Amino acid sequence: MTRKKIKIYQDLMGENNRWAGETRKLLAEHGLVMVNLIGSPGCGKTALLERLADMLDGTLRFAVLEGDIETVNDARRLARKNIVVSQLLTKGSCHLEAKMVHYALRDLPLAELDLIVVENVGNLVCPAEFDIGEHCKIAILSVTEGEDKPLKYPLLFREAGAAVVSKTDLLPHLTFNLDACVANIRRINTALPLFQLSSTSGTGVTAFLDWLRTVPSR
Amino acid sequence: MTRKKIKIYQDLMGENNRWAGETRKLLAEHGLVMVNLIGSPGCGKTALLERLADMLDGTLRFAVLEGDIETVNDARRLARKNIVVSQLLTKGSCHLEAKMVHYALRDLPLAELDLIVVENVGNLVCPAEFDIGEHCKIAILSVTEGEDKPLKYPLLFREAGAAVVSKTDLLPHLTFNLDACVANIRRINTALPLFQLSSTSGTGVTAFLDWLRTVPSR
Repeated sequence: MTRKKIKIYQDLMGENNRWAGETRKLLAEHGLVMVNLIGSPGCGKTALLERLADMLDGTLRFAVLEGDIETVNDARRLARKNIVVSQLLTKGSCHLEAKMVHYALRDLPLAELDLIVVENVGNLVCPAEFDIGEHCKIAILSVTEGEDKPLKYPLLFREAGAAVVSKTDLLPHLTFNLDACVANIRRINTALPLFQLSSTSGTGVTAFLDWLRTVPSR
Repeated sequence: MTRKKIKIYQDLMGENNRWAGETRKLLAEHGLVMVNLIGSPGCGKTALLERLADMLDGTLRFAVLEGDIETVNDARRLARKNIVVSQLLTKGSCHLEAKMVHYALRDLPLAELDLIVVENVGNLVCPAEFDIGEHCKIAILSVTEGEDKPLKYPLLFREAGAAVVSKTDLLPHLTFNLDACVANIRRINTALPLFQLSSTSGTGVTAFLDWLRTVPSR
Protein backbone atom coordinates (compact mmCIF):
# COMPACT_ATOMS: atom_id res chain seq x y z
CA MET A 1 0.00 0.00 0.00
CA THR A 2 1.45 3.35 -1.00
CA ARG A 3 -0.03 6.59 0.26
CA LYS A 4 -1.28 8.92 -2.44
CA LYS A 5 0.39 12.28 -2.60
CA ILE A 6 -1.53 15.05 -4.25
CA LYS A 7 0.27 18.18 -5.33
CA ILE A 8 -1.71 21.15 -6.52
CA TYR A 9 -0.09 23.82 -8.65
CA GLN A 10 -2.22 26.89 -9.16
CA ASP A 11 -1.31 28.64 -12.36
CA LEU A 12 2.36 27.80 -11.94
CA MET A 13 3.71 29.72 -14.91
CA GLY A 14 1.43 32.66 -14.09
CA GLU A 15 3.29 33.13 -10.78
CA ASN A 16 6.63 33.00 -12.61
CA ASN A 17 5.43 35.42 -15.25
CA ARG A 18 4.14 37.84 -12.61
CA TRP A 19 7.67 38.07 -11.14
CA ALA A 20 9.11 38.43 -14.65
CA GLY A 21 6.74 41.40 -15.13
CA GLU A 22 7.94 42.95 -11.85
CA THR A 23 11.51 42.58 -13.08
CA ARG A 24 10.71 44.28 -16.38
CA LYS A 25 9.19 47.21 -14.45
CA LEU A 26 12.27 47.50 -12.23
CA LEU A 27 14.60 47.40 -15.24
CA ALA A 28 12.54 50.06 -17.03
CA GLU A 29 12.65 52.35 -13.99
CA HIS A 30 16.44 52.26 -14.13
CA GLY A 31 16.80 52.23 -17.94
CA LEU A 32 18.56 48.88 -17.69
CA VAL A 33 18.87 46.04 -20.18
CA MET A 34 18.92 42.42 -19.02
CA VAL A 35 20.02 39.45 -21.12
CA ASN A 36 19.67 35.75 -20.29
CA LEU A 37 22.67 33.62 -21.34
CA ILE A 38 21.70 29.98 -21.91
CA GLY A 39 23.81 27.00 -22.98
CA SER A 40 25.08 23.55 -22.01
CA PRO A 41 27.39 22.92 -19.08
CA GLY A 42 30.90 23.96 -20.10
CA CYS A 43 29.93 25.71 -23.34
CA GLY A 44 31.89 28.80 -22.28
CA LYS A 45 29.33 31.14 -20.71
CA THR A 46 31.56 32.24 -17.84
CA ALA A 47 34.66 32.41 -20.05
CA LEU A 48 32.84 34.80 -22.40
CA LEU A 49 31.92 37.08 -19.49
CA GLU A 50 35.52 37.03 -18.24
CA ARG A 51 36.70 38.07 -21.70
CA LEU A 52 34.09 40.86 -21.90
CA ALA A 53 35.26 42.15 -18.52
CA ASP A 54 38.82 42.36 -19.88
CA MET A 55 37.67 44.35 -22.93
CA LEU A 56 35.33 46.84 -21.31
CA ASP A 57 36.44 50.35 -20.57
CA GLY A 58 33.63 51.64 -18.36
CA THR A 59 31.35 52.49 -21.29
CA LEU A 60 29.15 49.49 -20.56
CA ARG A 61 28.82 48.88 -16.84
CA PHE A 62 27.52 45.36 -16.30
CA ALA A 63 26.67 43.05 -13.44
CA VAL A 64 26.16 39.30 -13.54
CA LEU A 65 23.56 37.16 -11.83
CA GLU A 66 25.24 33.78 -11.82
CA GLY A 67 22.92 30.76 -11.79
CA ASP A 68 24.16 27.37 -10.65
CA ILE A 69 22.73 24.30 -8.99
CA GLU A 70 25.68 24.11 -6.61
CA THR A 71 29.03 25.87 -5.95
CA VAL A 72 30.06 29.53 -6.12
CA ASN A 73 32.98 28.81 -8.49
CA ASP A 74 31.66 30.95 -11.34
CA ALA A 75 30.84 33.95 -9.16
CA ARG A 76 34.39 33.77 -7.75
CA ARG A 77 35.85 33.68 -11.27
CA LEU A 78 33.91 36.82 -12.22
CA ALA A 79 34.62 38.62 -8.94
CA ARG A 80 38.33 38.24 -9.72
CA LYS A 81 37.64 40.33 -12.85
CA ASN A 82 36.03 43.04 -10.69
CA ILE A 83 32.59 42.28 -12.10
CA VAL A 84 29.65 43.02 -9.78
CA VAL A 85 28.26 39.49 -9.34
CA SER A 86 25.73 37.64 -7.21
CA GLN A 87 25.49 33.87 -7.08
CA LEU A 88 22.02 32.31 -7.38
CA LEU A 89 22.00 28.71 -6.18
CA THR A 90 19.01 26.69 -7.35
CA LYS A 91 19.91 23.72 -5.08
CA GLY A 92 18.80 21.08 -7.53
CA SER A 93 16.61 22.97 -9.96
CA CYS A 94 17.67 22.82 -13.60
CA HIS A 95 16.81 26.44 -14.42
CA LEU A 96 16.40 29.90 -12.90
CA GLU A 97 12.93 31.15 -12.07
CA ALA A 98 11.78 34.75 -12.18
CA LYS A 99 11.26 35.26 -8.45
CA MET A 100 14.83 34.38 -7.45
CA VAL A 101 16.20 36.56 -10.25
CA HIS A 102 13.98 39.46 -9.15
CA TYR A 103 15.15 39.35 -5.53
CA ALA A 104 18.81 39.15 -6.56
CA LEU A 105 18.34 42.00 -9.05
CA ARG A 106 16.83 44.28 -6.37
CA ASP A 107 20.00 43.92 -4.30
CA LEU A 108 22.31 45.11 -7.11
CA PRO A 109 23.48 48.75 -7.32
CA LEU A 110 21.12 49.40 -10.24
CA ALA A 111 21.83 53.13 -10.53
CA GLU A 112 25.47 52.36 -11.33
CA LEU A 113 24.77 49.83 -14.10
CA ASP A 114 23.84 49.68 -17.81
CA LEU A 115 23.45 45.95 -18.36
CA ILE A 116 22.55 42.86 -16.35
CA VAL A 117 23.73 39.51 -17.67
CA VAL A 118 22.03 36.48 -16.18
CA GLU A 119 24.12 33.37 -16.65
CA ASN A 120 21.55 30.61 -16.41
CA VAL A 121 22.12 27.05 -15.15
CA GLY A 122 24.10 24.96 -17.67
CA ASN A 123 21.29 23.32 -19.63
CA LEU A 124 20.25 23.67 -23.26
CA VAL A 125 16.64 22.71 -22.53
CA CYS A 126 14.75 23.87 -19.45
CA PRO A 127 16.00 27.46 -18.95
CA ALA A 128 14.53 28.39 -22.35
CA GLU A 129 11.05 27.64 -21.01
CA PHE A 130 11.15 30.23 -18.22
CA ASP A 131 10.66 33.96 -18.71
CA ILE A 132 12.78 35.72 -16.09
CA GLY A 133 11.95 39.22 -17.29
CA GLU A 134 14.93 39.50 -19.63
CA HIS A 135 14.88 41.62 -22.80
CA CYS A 136 16.69 38.97 -24.77
CA LYS A 137 17.77 35.33 -24.47
CA ILE A 138 21.21 34.54 -25.90
CA ALA A 139 21.86 30.94 -26.98
CA ILE A 140 25.45 29.78 -26.67
CA LEU A 141 26.73 26.59 -28.30
CA SER A 142 30.36 25.45 -28.37
CA VAL A 143 31.90 23.90 -31.46
CA THR A 144 32.76 20.77 -29.45
CA GLU A 145 29.04 19.97 -29.07
CA GLY A 146 28.32 19.22 -32.74
CA GLU A 147 26.60 21.06 -35.54
CA ASP A 148 23.26 19.24 -35.15
CA LYS A 149 22.42 20.65 -31.72
CA PRO A 150 20.20 23.56 -32.90
CA LEU A 151 17.90 20.97 -34.54
CA LYS A 152 17.93 18.69 -31.51
CA TYR A 153 17.24 21.50 -29.01
CA PRO A 154 15.18 23.91 -31.13
CA LEU A 155 13.22 25.79 -28.45
CA LEU A 156 16.17 27.85 -27.24
CA PHE A 157 17.20 28.84 -30.75
CA ARG A 158 13.60 29.77 -31.54
CA GLU A 159 13.27 31.92 -28.39
CA ALA A 160 16.70 33.55 -28.59
CA GLY A 161 17.48 37.10 -29.72
CA ALA A 162 21.04 36.12 -30.65
CA ALA A 163 23.20 33.01 -30.89
CA VAL A 164 26.88 32.58 -30.07
CA VAL A 165 29.01 29.75 -31.47
CA SER A 166 31.88 29.55 -29.01
CA LYS A 167 35.35 27.95 -28.75
CA THR A 168 36.12 28.50 -32.44
CA ASP A 169 39.85 28.27 -31.55
CA LEU A 170 39.30 24.50 -31.24
CA LEU A 171 38.00 24.12 -34.83
CA PRO A 172 41.33 22.87 -36.27
CA HIS A 173 41.16 19.89 -33.89
CA LEU A 174 37.54 18.91 -34.61
CA THR A 175 35.43 17.62 -37.49
CA PHE A 176 32.80 20.26 -36.64
CA ASN A 177 31.22 21.78 -39.76
CA LEU A 178 30.65 25.46 -38.99
CA ASP A 179 28.64 26.11 -42.16
CA ALA A 180 26.29 23.22 -41.35
CA CYS A 181 25.87 24.55 -37.80
CA VAL A 182 24.97 28.02 -39.08
CA ALA A 183 22.55 26.49 -41.60
CA ASN A 184 20.91 24.48 -38.80
CA ILE A 185 20.47 27.60 -36.66
CA ARG A 186 18.99 29.39 -39.70
CA ARG A 187 16.49 26.52 -40.20
CA ILE A 188 15.15 27.21 -36.68
CA ASN A 189 15.42 31.01 -36.66
CA THR A 190 16.08 32.66 -40.03
CA ALA A 191 17.15 36.13 -38.97
CA LEU A 192 18.89 35.42 -35.65
CA PRO A 193 22.02 37.57 -35.13
CA LEU A 194 24.90 35.11 -35.00
CA PHE A 195 28.38 35.47 -33.51
CA GLN A 196 31.27 33.05 -33.97
CA LEU A 197 33.92 33.69 -31.36
CA SER A 198 36.67 32.38 -29.14
CA SER A 199 36.88 33.69 -25.59
CA THR A 200 40.37 32.15 -25.37
CA SER A 201 41.88 34.01 -28.35
CA GLY A 202 39.42 36.92 -28.31
CA THR A 203 38.52 36.46 -32.01
CA GLY A 204 34.98 37.64 -32.73
CA VAL A 205 34.24 38.92 -29.22
CA THR A 206 34.26 42.60 -30.27
CA ALA A 207 31.40 42.03 -32.73
CA PHE A 208 29.39 40.37 -29.98
CA LEU A 209 30.14 43.20 -27.56
CA ASP A 210 29.10 45.79 -30.15
CA TRP A 211 25.80 43.97 -30.59
CA LEU A 212 25.33 43.72 -26.81
CA ARG A 213 25.48 47.54 -26.61
CA THR A 214 22.50 47.74 -28.94
CA VAL A 215 20.00 45.39 -27.25
CA PRO A 216 16.87 47.51 -26.85
CA SER A 217 15.31 47.85 -23.40
CA ARG A 218 11.74 47.64 -24.66
CA MET B 1 -8.23 39.12 -15.47
CA THR B 2 -6.39 35.83 -15.91
CA ARG B 3 -8.20 32.53 -15.50
CA LYS B 4 -6.83 30.25 -12.85
CA LYS B 5 -5.55 26.91 -14.10
CA ILE B 6 -5.33 24.11 -11.59
CA LYS B 7 -3.29 21.06 -12.41
CA ILE B 8 -3.46 18.05 -10.15
CA TYR B 9 -0.69 15.48 -10.19
CA GLN B 10 -1.49 12.36 -8.23
CA ASP B 11 1.70 10.75 -6.99
CA LEU B 12 3.60 11.79 -10.11
CA MET B 13 6.86 9.99 -9.39
CA GLY B 14 4.90 6.93 -8.19
CA GLU B 15 3.49 6.49 -11.70
CA ASN B 16 6.98 6.79 -13.19
CA ASN B 17 8.41 4.36 -10.65
CA ARG B 18 5.63 1.84 -11.32
CA TRP B 19 6.67 1.73 -15.00
CA ALA B 20 10.33 1.48 -13.97
CA GLY B 21 9.36 -1.55 -11.87
CA GLU B 22 7.59 -3.13 -14.86
CA THR B 23 10.74 -2.59 -16.91
CA ARG B 24 12.92 -4.27 -14.27
CA LYS B 25 10.59 -7.27 -14.31
CA LEU B 26 10.74 -7.50 -18.10
CA LEU B 27 14.55 -7.25 -18.09
CA ALA B 28 14.79 -9.95 -15.41
CA GLU B 29 12.55 -12.29 -17.41
CA HIS B 30 15.01 -12.04 -20.31
CA GLY B 31 18.22 -11.94 -18.24
CA LEU B 32 18.97 -8.53 -19.72
CA VAL B 33 21.01 -5.63 -18.38
CA MET B 34 19.98 -2.04 -19.06
CA VAL B 35 22.19 1.02 -18.57
CA ASN B 36 21.18 4.69 -18.74
CA LEU B 37 23.77 6.94 -20.40
CA ILE B 38 23.48 10.55 -19.22
CA GLY B 39 25.50 13.63 -20.16
CA SER B 40 25.38 17.12 -21.70
CA PRO B 41 24.47 17.79 -25.33
CA GLY B 42 27.49 16.90 -27.45
CA CYS B 43 29.51 15.16 -24.73
CA GLY B 44 30.02 12.14 -26.98
CA LYS B 45 27.30 9.66 -25.99
CA THR B 46 26.45 8.59 -29.54
CA ALA B 47 30.11 8.59 -30.62
CA LEU B 48 30.92 6.18 -27.79
CA LEU B 49 28.15 3.81 -28.90
CA GLU B 50 29.39 3.98 -32.50
CA ARG B 51 32.89 3.05 -31.31
CA LEU B 52 31.54 0.17 -29.18
CA ALA B 53 29.66 -1.14 -32.23
CA ASP B 54 32.92 -1.18 -34.19
CA MET B 55 34.69 -3.15 -31.43
CA LEU B 56 32.06 -5.75 -30.64
CA ASP B 57 32.29 -9.23 -32.05
CA GLY B 58 28.87 -10.66 -31.24
CA THR B 59 29.83 -11.54 -27.65
CA LEU B 60 27.76 -8.66 -26.28
CA ARG B 61 24.62 -8.13 -28.32
CA PHE B 62 23.26 -4.68 -27.55
CA ALA B 63 20.39 -2.47 -28.62
CA VAL B 64 20.02 1.26 -28.09
CA LEU B 65 16.98 3.27 -27.05
CA GLU B 66 17.89 6.70 -28.32
CA GLY B 67 16.31 9.62 -26.45
CA ASP B 68 16.05 13.04 -28.06
CA ILE B 69 13.73 16.02 -27.90
CA GLU B 70 13.68 16.28 -31.70
CA THR B 71 15.29 14.65 -34.78
CA VAL B 72 16.19 11.04 -35.54
CA ASN B 73 19.83 11.90 -36.37
CA ASP B 74 21.34 9.77 -33.62
CA ALA B 75 19.24 6.68 -34.39
CA ARG B 76 20.31 7.00 -38.03
CA ARG B 77 24.00 7.20 -37.01
CA LEU B 78 23.66 4.00 -34.96
CA ALA B 79 21.58 2.17 -37.57
CA ARG B 80 24.47 2.71 -40.00
CA LYS B 81 26.60 0.67 -37.56
CA ASN B 82 24.02 -2.16 -37.68
CA ILE B 83 22.97 -1.51 -34.09
CA VAL B 84 19.37 -2.39 -33.22
CA VAL B 85 18.02 1.06 -32.32
CA SER B 86 14.72 2.78 -31.61
CA GLN B 87 14.31 6.54 -31.44
CA LEU B 88 12.35 7.97 -28.49
CA LEU B 89 11.24 11.53 -29.15
CA THR B 90 10.25 13.47 -26.04
CA LYS B 91 8.90 16.42 -28.09
CA GLY B 92 10.04 19.07 -25.64
CA SER B 93 10.66 17.13 -22.46
CA CYS B 94 14.17 17.40 -21.04
CA HIS B 95 14.45 13.75 -19.93
CA LEU B 96 13.13 10.25 -20.62
CA GLU B 97 10.36 8.86 -18.44
CA ALA B 98 9.89 5.21 -17.53
CA LYS B 99 6.66 4.62 -19.45
CA MET B 100 8.04 5.61 -22.84
CA VAL B 101 11.17 3.54 -22.24
CA HIS B 102 9.05 0.55 -21.21
CA TYR B 103 6.94 0.63 -24.37
CA ALA B 104 10.00 0.98 -26.61
CA LEU B 105 11.76 -1.82 -24.76
CA ARG B 106 8.83 -4.22 -25.25
CA ASP B 107 9.13 -3.78 -29.01
CA LEU B 108 12.81 -4.82 -29.12
CA PRO B 109 13.85 -8.42 -29.99
CA LEU B 110 14.72 -9.09 -26.33
CA ALA B 111 15.53 -12.79 -26.77
CA GLU B 112 18.37 -11.88 -29.13
CA LEU B 113 20.01 -9.31 -26.83
CA ASP B 114 22.34 -9.12 -23.81
CA LEU B 115 22.39 -5.40 -23.09
CA ILE B 116 20.14 -2.38 -23.57
CA VAL B 117 21.78 1.04 -23.62
CA VAL B 118 19.43 3.96 -23.14
CA GLU B 119 20.98 7.17 -24.45
CA ASN B 120 19.09 9.82 -22.51
CA VAL B 121 18.31 13.38 -23.66
CA GLY B 122 21.44 15.58 -23.62
CA ASN B 123 21.16 17.14 -20.19
CA LEU B 124 23.39 16.83 -17.13
CA VAL B 125 20.56 17.64 -14.72
CA CYS B 126 17.02 16.35 -15.16
CA PRO B 127 17.54 12.81 -16.52
CA ALA B 128 19.35 11.88 -13.28
CA GLU B 129 16.11 12.47 -11.36
CA PHE B 130 14.07 9.83 -13.21
CA ASP B 131 14.30 6.10 -12.60
CA ILE B 132 13.62 4.38 -15.92
CA GLY B 133 14.18 0.86 -14.59
CA GLU B 134 17.88 0.75 -15.50
CA HIS B 135 20.42 -1.31 -13.53
CA CYS B 136 22.98 1.43 -13.69
CA LYS B 137 23.27 5.11 -14.65
CA ILE B 138 26.48 6.06 -16.47
CA ALA B 139 27.61 9.69 -16.24
CA ILE B 140 29.54 10.99 -19.23
CA LEU B 141 31.47 14.25 -19.17
CA SER B 142 33.72 15.53 -21.96
CA VAL B 143 37.03 17.21 -21.24
CA THR B 144 35.86 20.32 -23.11
CA GLU B 145 33.24 20.96 -20.39
CA GLY B 146 35.65 21.78 -17.56
CA GLU B 147 36.86 19.92 -14.49
CA ASP B 148 34.44 21.60 -12.07
CA LYS B 149 31.27 20.09 -13.56
CA PRO B 150 30.94 17.12 -11.14
CA LEU B 151 30.72 19.64 -8.27
CA LYS B 152 28.24 21.86 -10.12
CA TYR B 153 25.97 18.98 -11.17
CA PRO B 154 26.47 16.55 -8.29
CA LEU B 155 23.22 14.54 -8.43
CA LEU B 156 24.17 12.56 -11.54
CA PHE B 157 27.61 11.68 -10.20
CA ARG B 158 26.05 10.62 -6.89
CA GLU B 159 23.45 8.41 -8.63
CA ALA B 160 25.79 6.92 -11.24
CA GLY B 161 27.29 3.43 -11.22
CA ALA B 162 30.19 4.56 -13.42
CA ALA B 163 31.59 7.75 -14.92
CA VAL B 164 33.20 8.31 -18.30
CA VAL B 165 35.50 11.24 -19.06
CA SER B 166 35.33 11.51 -22.84
CA LYS B 167 37.20 13.24 -25.69
CA THR B 168 40.61 12.79 -24.05
CA ASP B 169 42.18 13.15 -27.53
CA LEU B 170 41.46 16.89 -27.22
CA LEU B 171 43.46 17.30 -23.97
CA PRO B 172 46.60 18.70 -25.69
CA HIS B 173 44.48 21.63 -26.96
CA LEU B 174 42.80 22.47 -23.65
CA THR B 175 43.71 23.73 -20.19
CA PHE B 176 41.50 20.98 -18.69
CA ASN B 177 43.06 19.47 -15.53
CA LEU B 178 42.22 15.75 -15.64
CA ASP B 179 43.52 15.08 -12.11
CA ALA B 180 41.32 17.86 -10.71
CA CYS B 181 38.32 16.45 -12.59
CA VAL B 182 38.91 12.97 -11.16
CA ALA B 183 39.35 14.45 -7.66
CA ASN B 184 36.05 16.34 -8.06
CA ILE B 185 34.23 13.16 -9.10
CA ARG B 186 35.75 11.38 -6.08
CA ARG B 187 34.50 14.15 -3.77
CA ILE B 188 30.94 13.35 -4.90
CA ASN B 189 31.25 9.57 -5.20
CA THR B 190 34.37 8.02 -3.67
CA ALA B 191 34.32 4.56 -5.22
CA LEU B 192 32.76 5.27 -8.63
CA PRO B 193 34.38 3.23 -11.45
CA LEU B 194 35.95 5.81 -13.75
CA PHE B 195 36.95 5.55 -17.40
CA GLN B 196 38.99 8.09 -19.36
CA LEU B 197 38.59 7.51 -23.07
CA SER B 198 38.49 8.87 -26.60
CA SER B 199 35.88 7.50 -28.97
CA THR B 200 37.79 9.18 -31.82
CA SER B 201 41.13 7.43 -31.21
CA GLY B 202 39.72 4.43 -29.35
CA THR B 203 42.05 4.93 -26.36
CA GLY B 204 40.48 3.63 -23.14
CA VAL B 205 37.31 2.25 -24.75
CA THR B 206 38.30 -1.40 -24.18
CA ALA B 207 38.44 -0.91 -20.40
CA PHE B 208 34.96 0.62 -20.48
CA LEU B 209 33.63 -2.21 -22.63
CA ASP B 210 35.14 -4.80 -20.25
CA TRP B 211 33.38 -3.11 -17.35
CA LEU B 212 30.11 -2.93 -19.32
CA ARG B 213 30.18 -6.75 -19.64
CA THR B 214 30.19 -7.03 -15.83
CA VAL B 215 27.23 -4.80 -14.87
CA PRO B 216 25.06 -7.06 -12.70
CA SER B 217 21.39 -7.53 -13.62
CA ARG B 218 20.21 -7.47 -10.01
